Amino acid sequence: MENPAQQLRVDGARLWRSLMAMAEIGATPAGGCNRQALTDEDREGRDLFVRWCREIGCEIRVDRMGNLFARRPGIDNSLPAVMTGSHLDTQPTGGKFDGVYGVLAGLEVLRTLEGKGVRTRAPLELVVWTNEEGARFSPAMVGSGVWAGEFSLEYGHSRRDKAGKSIGEELARIGYLGSEPAQPTQIKAAFEAHIEQGPVLEKQNQVIGVVTGVQGIRWYDVTFSGTPCHAGPTPMEDRRDPVQALSGLCERLYAEVKAYSGDARITCGDLRAEPGSRNTVPEKVVLALDLRHPAPEGLAHLHRTLYRLAAQVQEATGVAITVREEWHSPPVAFDKDCIEAVHSAAQRLGYSHRRMVSGAGHDAVYVSRVAPVSMIFVPCAGGLSHNEAESAEPAHLEAGCNVLLQAMLASAELA
Amino acid sequence: MENPAQQLRVDGARLWRSLMAMAEIGATPAGGCNRQALTDEDREGRDLFVRWCREIGCEIRVDRMGNLFARRPGIDNSLPAVMTGSHLDTQPTGGKFDGVYGVLAGLEVLRTLEGKGVRTRAPLELVVWTNEEGARFSPAMVGSGVWAGEFSLEYGHSRRDKAGKSIGEELARIGYLGSEPAQPTQIKAAFEAHIEQGPVLEKQNQVIGVVTGVQGIRWYDVTFSGTPCHAGPTPMEDRRDPVQALSGLCERLYAEVKAYSGDARITCGDLRAEPGSRNTVPEKVVLALDLRHPAPEGLAHLHRTLYRLAAQVQEATGVAITVREEWHSPPVAFDKDCIEAVHSAAQRLGYSHRRMVSGAGHDAVYVSRVAPVSMIFVPCAGGLSHNEAESAEPAHLEAGCNVLLQAMLASAELA
Repeated sequence: MENPAQQLRVDGARLWRSLMAMAEIGATPAGGCNRQALTDEDREGRDLFVRWCREIGCEIRVDRMGNLFARRPGIDNSLPAVMTGSHLDTQPTGGKFDGVYGVLAGLEVLRTLEGKGVRTRAPLELVVWTNEEGARFSPAMVGSGVWAGEFSLEYGHSRRDKAGKSIGEELARIGYLGSEPAQPTQIKAAFEAHIEQGPVLEKQNQVIGVVTGVQGIRWYDVTFSGTPCHAGPTPMEDRRDPVQALSGLCERLYAEVKAYSGDARITCGDLRAEPGSRNTVPEKVVLALDLRHPAPEGLAHLHRTLYRLAAQVQEATGVAITVREEWHSPPVAFDKDCIEAVHSAAQRLGYSHRRMVSGAGHDAVYVSRVAPVSMIFVPCAGGLSHNEAESAEPAHLEAGCNVLLQAMLASAELA
Repeated sequence: MENPAQQLRVDGARLWRSLMAMAEIGATPAGGCNRQALTDEDREGRDLFVRWCREIGCEIRVDRMGNLFARRPGIDNSLPAVMTGSHLDTQPTGGKFDGVYGVLAGLEVLRTLEGKGVRTRAPLELVVWTNEEGARFSPAMVGSGVWAGEFSLEYGHSRRDKAGKSIGEELARIGYLGSEPAQPTQIKAAFEAHIEQGPVLEKQNQVIGVVTGVQGIRWYDVTFSGTPCHAGPTPMEDRRDPVQALSGLCERLYAEVKAYSGDARITCGDLRAEPGSRNTVPEKVVLALDLRHPAPEGLAHLHRTLYRLAAQVQEATGVAITVREEWHSPPVAFDKDCIEAVHSAAQRLGYSHRRMVSGAGHDAVYVSRVAPVSMIFVPCAGGLSHNEAESAEPAHLEAGCNVLLQAMLASAELA
């Protein structure tokens, strides 16, 4: 006999309206969002989220990292909770879906249960993590990282943006420096819905990605220190030009990373020349580098390649190259039972699906250190993300949300 | 019979004290100067210069580009003047001598004549040109350029810094928006003393560079427009990464420029990635490029090489590359008689000397469009300039100033 809860479906139109309402906060002329962590726009987004959760009777808690928890009580509140959620902050030229979808899909699940009067045995917890993007404050995923014990609270509060403002100061300024300890509660299972941020599902014409783990990521600041001199008189052979060293290293690194494996990724997201005057050879250039690979041995190989090539280019150009590792997030394998809950929900609902590894880091990575976790991916147009043109089909967003609902119900059990 | 004026010598210690006093304005912790054009520091430097000139009875005029003219009357003020001077503005991490030496060497010449009661037939004119460096406002040498008719006054006033402030607004703010027309007066001859800003005199152990002309310069903004995407999921072969195009173009351009000629110069002085987030492939990268060559055909070759390689890299990477020429200053040949005046002064004074082409652009380039011109170079340590460590020997600075005095006297004739 079929369980009647398996007939429950979310309201895709309501989910879409929520996404579009949130996208108005920090909307950019090009159709994207600029709602960076702990800005006035982030506060406004949080305020809207809190209002929506209170409308369906959730209790709100804020911890000392500004992470927001909306709780829907279960029948037995001594049971570990079933968690879902993601983040509301965006890249400076971000889209409407990255992170936001995971938060509002969770909200839509709670609204659906509330609307149908369905009670679960275990409590449900919907979370918004602080500063997932890492765009304003480095590193990324710092809210979930402090909560899961990866970073200390002091470390989290002391991260600063380019203008010198810290997370602690900015949390207090926008009124989201909570009093709850930033540490795990009992979690039975956690699910994060997200757009894929890559082209695989779209290319293969599939609706649901059953996410089995996450690529490893290493972040570096690479500094090239040369000798500033006037652009005219100094002969080329007497120069120590940091831009020449930068281009030499990048050329070799792109070539070797691509040749090594189709799974490897190299991104040079930021560049800065100092003092930055057209007719002066710069004193230094700083490169913000991101290397990724799904396997630990692959990531270690990329790491060694970077150091080896930096030494070679330093030798060849006379420009001092220092490589400072800023962050290391090893590859992650998600929980077998949670993966299975997502997989069987997709199967029962009749959505095309495939297992896949996430290319992007997610709060789920840190949550997986303290709780069983899996993720649900839906396609996004052209695989584009971290881009104002980011877009996703309403039908796919609804499908992912239905998978989330069913996976959560299976974990939380019905009354 | 020797002319007694040929026995006149400047006071090297006084010249050095003036240089050190000016260097206190905008002094940096590393021993250099940050006195960028039309800042509060520039105003302070101008105020000091004006005070010094008034102390020796000079009349001060300020033109509508903020160029300052200190005039020492001659016996016959209907005669064309003999001019000298340079600039007081510096690079953001500049030194104590670039430009400043040419202004204060001119001042020392006037002080010497005043001190000895020597009168010249023609009037003498000491000038401070506005925004020579081009560091705060592009292009360089804009004050002398407007004066000489290379640029319109409207163009000069409308140049903006990175913060959006214009030269016209900033001249008014610091009180140096003068009322004199910015246009040439009658000039019999003009001389500009300057540190070499290159290593040649020092390496060859010579004291005076007799400057016969100036390298040609072309400035470009090169924009690489890619597709922003998330650092993790997008496979490398699906990316259009502007940093990859940048490094590909720079690698090839450095190699070809060096292979072409020892006289060619390439400088990548500034780089900017947008939006500049570590885990996002940038949407675009902008490179500020400076190419130089002493011969017109050499400069034209570098120009064609840039466009050819940009097209090749665009084809190979799929990243759109636009090359916009920002400025073109063709190679310049100085006046035969002025060069000879410098050469014979150096010879008579017994200083080792050589003819040379300037690698850097100077206000003398624009002045040479409307008047006979030459320059006098003195060595600087290690050839370093546009660098806080810029330095020069007091004895060399004094030697260059004596050459300037004698060249000016020969042109202005004694009473």
